[in-house]
Amino acid sequence: MEFKHTIQLRVRYGETDQMGYCYYGNYAQYFEVGRVETLRSLGLSYKQLENEGFMLPVSEFAVRYKNPALYDDLLFIETTITEVKGARVYFTYIIKNETGTTVATATTTLVFVAKESMRPTSPPLNFIELIKKTR
Amino acid sequence: MEFKHTIQLRVRYGETDQMGYCYYGNYAQYFEVGRVETLRSLGLSYKQLENEGFMLPVSEFAVRYKNPALYDDLLFIETTITEVKGARVYFTYIIKNETGTTVATATTTLVFVAKESMRPTSPPLNFIELIKKTR
Amino acid sequence: MEFKHTIQLRVRYGETDQMGYCYYGNYAQYFEVGRVETLRSLGLSYKQLENEGFMLPVSEFAVRYKNPALYDDLLFIETTITEVKGARVYFTYIIKNETGTTVATATTTLVFVAKESMRPTSPPLNFIELIKKTR
Amino acid sequence: MEFKHTIQLRVRYGETDQMGYCYYGNYAQYFEVGRVETLRSLGLSYKQLENEGFMLPVSEFAVRYKNPALYDDLLFIETTITEVKGARVYFTYIIKNETGTTVATATTTLVFVAKESMRPTSPPLNFIELIKKTR
Repeated sequence: MEFKHTIQLRVRYGETDQMGYCYYGNYAQYFEVGRVETLRSLGLSYKQLENEGFMLPVSEFAVRYKNPALYDDLLFIETTITEVKGARVYFTYIIKNETGTTVATATTTLVFVAKESMRPTSPPLNFIELIKKTR
Repeated sequence: MEFKHTIQLRVRYGETDQMGYCYYGNYAQYFEVGRVETLRSLGLSYKQLENEGFMLPVSEFAVRYKNPALYDDLLFIETTITEVKGARVYFTYIIKNETGTTVATATTTLVFVAKESMRPTSPPLNFIELIKKTR
Repeated sequence: MEFKHTIQLRVRYGETDQMGYCYYGNYAQYFEVGRVETLRSLGLSYKQLENEGFMLPVSEFAVRYKNPALYDDLLFIETTITEVKGARVYFTYIIKNETGTTVATATTTLVFVAKESMRPTSPPLNFIELIKKTR
Repeated sequence: MEFKHTIQLRVRYGETDQMGYCYYGNYAQYFEVGRVETLRSLGLSYKQLENEGFMLPVSEFAVRYKNPALYDDLLFIETTITEVKGARVYFTYIIKNETGTTVATATTTLVFVAKESMRPTSPPLNFIELIKKTR
């Protein structure tokens, strides 16, 4: 099992802007798909986490746009779970295109929140144990 | 009081596509803003409707794109509540730009759904009475 | 070779709204992905069409939302090219989920426009011939 | 004349996610509206900059989500142009809601790019002079 997980997706027409670039705001969705699929590759369903009473809002997000992603570009999004600490989970991302050019790098911090109390909370045990196994 | 209500909004950069047009999928948000503000002008808060246990999903949506809306265009969205019938509310929309050119026309059908039962339901009484008064 | 082409995609978290449904405006992107991949399956690249001086804006779009698409749902989008007539191309779509339930049906009309003149124009010959072969 | 400029906008329904929060990826559009209107308040049209042969892609973007923005919240977006240095323009942002609670803070770096050469370039003179006057 691996911490790093890579997915592919294509830039949709509706995600471009009139510069002909993938709009800078649309990368957030790509990173979200990256981390959801990374969790799924570990046997964790983000959907189920919500059903079990957890939410995972993003508390910090930083991205460097190195080279534009263009319409129909096939992108490779490599996601790494870098740390789980208290209620927080840290992810880093690298997006490359088909020619191997780095499109963007990013980091996000997510916080486990209990739906009932709306307060930060420890991740569920199965989450912590799965993450441990991947180390 | 009026059935027709017009709001203004500007096409955001992130709403354009690489044709330089406002992406056809983004109009749905404009119509949503149009109907929410039309309800607000009648003293009805869509947010409060949800708090009272109703949802209002769209069941049908049809739009004709007559002329492109471009970046930074100031658009005028005229919304009309055309009918309330059973659980359904019918809206029509006309979008014009600053030069008076028609950008798009559209219709939507929304359905009152009770959150608890997830079934179609009559609108709340205050909604029906407010609509009646506008006739 | 076939007129009908089916693709799969998953509802992204950012595409849901607070009802817990895929927002009605986000389906436009799904249909766009459906038709782009349908063209690709015929050996046609929408990107290349643009490079050859054509644009294909949507002139009409109508959708019926039958059942909600939920977060993480795997959707099957069946796209059919129903007609090519003058400058116009007609598509129909059916979206089903993993249980076979119909989520939505839709139609779009697209118009070939010459980038230089910004006027409707006949599709390029290779497009017409490829479509003919599929009949 | 001022460096700081505050605009208002409302969270649209389509911008919420199933947590009931404004989706974290949608803030990028809010910051974009903030900086476009800040430039406009200085007499600068971003649209015109593009017509004069410049593009202004975002090269870095960092945001801290402090408190959720909810559907229909009226948000106040304060934008500050903090520096213009070479081809780069630096902005900072604070978003507050109607109760004065800080929703998010952010920074972006934008780069003037010449459309023809696709290379970083100095901002146009009128831009530099307008910014100087505001100091």
